[in-house]
Amino acid sequence: MDKIVRVNMFDLRVSIEEVPATWAQYGGRALTSTIVAAEVVPTCHPLGPDNKLVFAPGMLTGTTAVNAGRLSAGAKSPLTGGIKESSAGGIAGQILARLGIKALIIEGVPQQDCWYRIHVDKDGVEIQEEINLIGKGNYAVFKAVEAELGKKCGCLSIGPAGEFRMAAANISVRDKDGGVRSHGRGGLGAVMGSKKIKLISIDETGSEGVKVADPEKFSAAGKIFAKSLVNQPGIEYGMKPLGTSMLVNIIHGYGALPTRNFRDGQYAKHDMVSGETMRETIIARGGQPSHTCQPGCVIHCSQVYPDKDGKTVTSGLEYETLGLLGAACEIDSLDRIAEADRILDDIGLDSIDTAVGIAVLMDAGVLPFGDGDSVLRLLKDEVAKGTPLGRILGCGAATVGKVYGMTRVAAVKGQALPAYDPRPIKGIGITYATSPMGADHTAGYAVGPTLAGVIDGHQKKGQVELSRHCQHVSAALDSFGVCTFVDMAVGSDLECLPALVNMLNARFGASKTAEDYLLGLGSYVLKTEHRFNINAGLTSPQDRLPEFFSAETLPPSNTVWDFSDQEIAAFWNF
Amino acid sequence: MDKIVRVNMFDLRVSIEEVPATWAQYGGRALTSTIVAAEVVPTCHPLGPDNKLVFAPGMLTGTTAVNAGRLSAGAKSPLTGGIKESSAGGIAGQILARLGIKALIIEGVPQQDCWYRIHVDKDGVEIQEEINLIGKGNYAVFKAVEAELGKKCGCLSIGPAGEFRMAAANISVRDKDGGVRSHGRGGLGAVMGSKKIKLISIDETGSEGVKVADPEKFSAAGKIFAKSLVNQPGIEYGMKPLGTSMLVNIIHGYGALPTRNFRDGQYAKHDMVSGETMRETIIARGGQPSHTCQPGCVIHCSQVYPDKDGKTVTSGLEYETLGLLGAACEIDSLDRIAEADRILDDIGLDSIDTAVGIAVLMDAGVLPFGDGDSVLRLLKDEVAKGTPLGRILGCGAATVGKVYGMTRVAAVKGQALPAYDPRPIKGIGITYATSPMGADHTAGYAVGPTLAGVIDGHQKKGQVELSRHCQHVSAALDSFGVCTFVDMAVGSDLECLPALVNMLNARFGASKTAEDYLLGLGSYVLKTEHRFNINAGLTSPQDRLPEFFSAETLPPSNTVWDFSDQEIAAFWNF
Repeated sequence: MDKIVRVNMFDLRVSIEEVPATWAQYGGRALTSTIVAAEVVPTCHPLGPDNKLVFAPGMLTGTTAVNAGRLSAGAKSPLTGGIKESSAGGIAGQILARLGIKALIIEGVPQQDCWYRIHVDKDGVEIQEEINLIGKGNYAVFKAVEAELGKKCGCLSIGPAGEFRMAAANISVRDKDGGVRSHGRGGLGAVMGSKKIKLISIDETGSEGVKVADPEKFSAAGKIFAKSLVNQPGIEYGMKPLGTSMLVNIIHGYGALPTRNFRDGQYAKHDMVSGETMRETIIARGGQPSHTCQPGCVIHCSQVYPDKDGKTVTSGLEYETLGLLGAACEIDSLDRIAEADRILDDIGLDSIDTAVGIAVLMDAGVLPFGDGDSVLRLLKDEVAKGTPLGRILGCGAATVGKVYGMTRVAAVKGQALPAYDPRPIKGIGITYATSPMGADHTAGYAVGPTLAGVIDGHQKKGQVELSRHCQHVSAALDSFGVCTFVDMAVGSDLECLPALVNMLNARFGASKTAEDYLLGLGSYVLKTEHRFNINAGLTSPQDRLPEFFSAETLPPSNTVWDFSDQEIAAFWNF
Repeated sequence: MDKIVRVNMFDLRVSIEEVPATWAQYGGRALTSTIVAAEVVPTCHPLGPDNKLVFAPGMLTGTTAVNAGRLSAGAKSPLTGGIKESSAGGIAGQILARLGIKALIIEGVPQQDCWYRIHVDKDGVEIQEEINLIGKGNYAVFKAVEAELGKKCGCLSIGPAGEFRMAAANISVRDKDGGVRSHGRGGLGAVMGSKKIKLISIDETGSEGVKVADPEKFSAAGKIFAKSLVNQPGIEYGMKPLGTSMLVNIIHGYGALPTRNFRDGQYAKHDMVSGETMRETIIARGGQPSHTCQPGCVIHCSQVYPDKDGKTVTSGLEYETLGLLGAACEIDSLDRIAEADRILDDIGLDSIDTAVGIAVLMDAGVLPFGDGDSVLRLLKDEVAKGTPLGRILGCGAATVGKVYGMTRVAAVKGQALPAYDPRPIKGIGITYATSPMGADHTAGYAVGPTLAGVIDGHQKKGQVELSRHCQHVSAALDSFGVCTFVDMAVGSDLECLPALVNMLNARFGASKTAEDYLLGLGSYVLKTEHRFNINAGLTSPQDRLPEFFSAETLPPSNTVWDFSDQEIAAFWNF
């Protein structure tokens, strides 16, 4: 039987609850946002006793469905002050789901000033004091848990960034090979740190697995779904060989690569940090150009990047990290970016907010643009050690801007922009401006349809509607627990969405339509989150891009951000 | 003829404009808030080109009225993100008024990366490049201007804090003896720094003086007004001998002295930092226990505090600084607090936000409670030099809390609480919560009526109404340009308010009532500011005190903050 596990850190008590009827058909983002909206006082301090940290596997997570193993984490965000859901890969979600944990709700803060570990297995959930791993990075934590529970263990942990309660701290998720995946945005690691939880170890042994109402129907639909993903050309020829890093050259070509802290849409040295160059480098060094973060993935967007001696540096080096540490900070070395990515994973800090924060520090004259060695020193000697400068950067780009009195800070609601300049891809700008998450490409990826030529990114017409559609779809996919690239197949293969709908219906014994799942659920999630934000004090004036996007044209397209307040506000008319 | 001076820093152009009819009868806060609300886009970046910095002498400033020489400065605040008015003493306001400058509006930011000085005299306003004084403290700036223009010069300047665009930076105002008075709250010094203006020098030579419509009536009313102040017992026996520092023992006695970062309402060592001890010390060392910051003051709340050798350390050592560096940070040495006050004046940083920020740093373990020497080092070696830690502190208590992940941060809308715990003096808590300025005792000093026994500070009944009344009165007094202690005489002498009204009517050739001036004008100002804030994104959820005030009882009264959201929101029902 699925259950809700409630962990109270104030009195160190665990309680197991039945799943309320209204929550039963939700999962992932729909469930975390429902719980946060229902149980967290919107005006509470994100690091105080009234915030709650909620983990919920997606609606399909833990089943045999391919690419459906995502875990959602939710809370009030210390970065944005609004509601937050962050979806991650890795294997913790699948294991939690198979252990029957519909949601893990962590409440309160401890009375004692010590650290804890939560251990989850078939027999229940236990809170233990943790001493040995405090101060350690995520890789050391994962190794220790692996040594104890074996190679198939799940682990959610925070690194030093989370321990320091830095507002851009990740919650890190062990992947199937011991690598680090991340609930990367919105500082949920600081919330976990505020509750003094260093790690959550998860042992699947003896789990009952996910119950599916109609296994046959599920299996049949699952096959169609898998085929649809495998055959999708963008996945086959783009995601599989290159991963998201294929976007470096593409976004450069489109003129939206946020070069030198969003001053130019093209980066002269894009080739040095491109997906193509990365693939060649990985192959030449004997790494893995294609890799998966969890069992059941047929997309293989990950990779394992080795150093010159063939030793693994990092796994899951994404476009956002390449585009921002590369173009935005002008670091033209893949090796340095990979090393920075490894350190960020180990510290447990969001690479998007950190990279944009570094670009702001570069504008402030703290270090020069392009100086990768200084960036590595900054991460190792300042952030990892919690020095004042390290803490500033660890709190993300908006805090860097505040502390250094800078106005050129690419952030919305305190969360840094990903690596797509919104001036020539206006739909993603609407997503940045309006998403309840703050600036977030995964919240409504209007980039895809723009690159596909469905819409002209330079023109305003249709962009609000496009972003609205994309945000509905993202909210739904984040609830299903499928990976965001499923969207590519949904958009190109007419059989994909019906198969997904059939799987969902088969899983829950439901008979809903695609519209129910995408528009109905998506709309419910967005409105629930939006209402929370308004009650937390994030209103229409916070749905704005920084003013430099309106004041400065972006070469080479010479586009500006030219939406009026009213046009942006119209997003919420649904 | 009164005029509006507009200084455009983008194209370095000065224009002189007629006073619009709707602005003619405003001055001080009513005028700065009117102009900011009319001309500043509420969502603009406070340090960007769209913010405007407005100076306006009060409605009576520059006349022969006693205690009516205040200058208001206004802008969108980099500290709160809302509208800001900060009132200061010193002599700049009187001189500007007598030069016929109704308001000085500074717009835009320069195109060149260099610093400027604005010079104001009878012939007009000039923008000059400034090189020599950059990096210097306010005392050095004042001395340089004095050497050039003589002992009667006016000067508005920023220290290193403003140059670094720290969000709690002051604009400093030269007083009649060359000492430093401050537009201390809301980071207006950072706005001046963002416009690259190091100083505004003001030469009164040849000024025409303030035109009064009915000089005889004005003079007659002025005499009654002056007598009313001189004879007020609280002024005669409290403010004159002790200044605001008389409150240390009184607020300790009331149990509202925010000891150890607002953990206790009483400070065991209150006697060591009390007004009585300060007076004895000053007299023993040959300083001035009573002093005025501007000509025409009959209250003499200031003092000149000397060191052991009789050398002046600082002038205008206020209760807020004593209560916060003393009780909140537990620094039990008047000498160290006076030295800190001098450094803060020289750097140009708000002593309230800085002291509360230091208390948060003490909670975070960065330095120990009570360590005055470390505080001095922190100010001299970190803040003054713009190190990362110095910049964090220079951005005020809320930023310290954010960067160090602390929840015990006494701030509202990003602005730190003054030295009155709101749990046993609930009226001031309503002011902190609701004032458009953020936490600000001068915005509605409900402490006075509480100490006078008009209301029981521990009980909720009547506090919203009290704060509403006090905020109306404060908004009016800040517009008149009279000093806030005039309120004491208005409350105790039935002749005071009619005399004030007669002066205002005589000055403007008007025939308004006391209700027009206090309630009418006060209400207009508050509503104008509130509307700006809502459009800037500061809505009802930001009208809240930090949650620890509700969660923890304050010894020895064991009071808590127990207003519901609805009760607080009712403040705005007028």
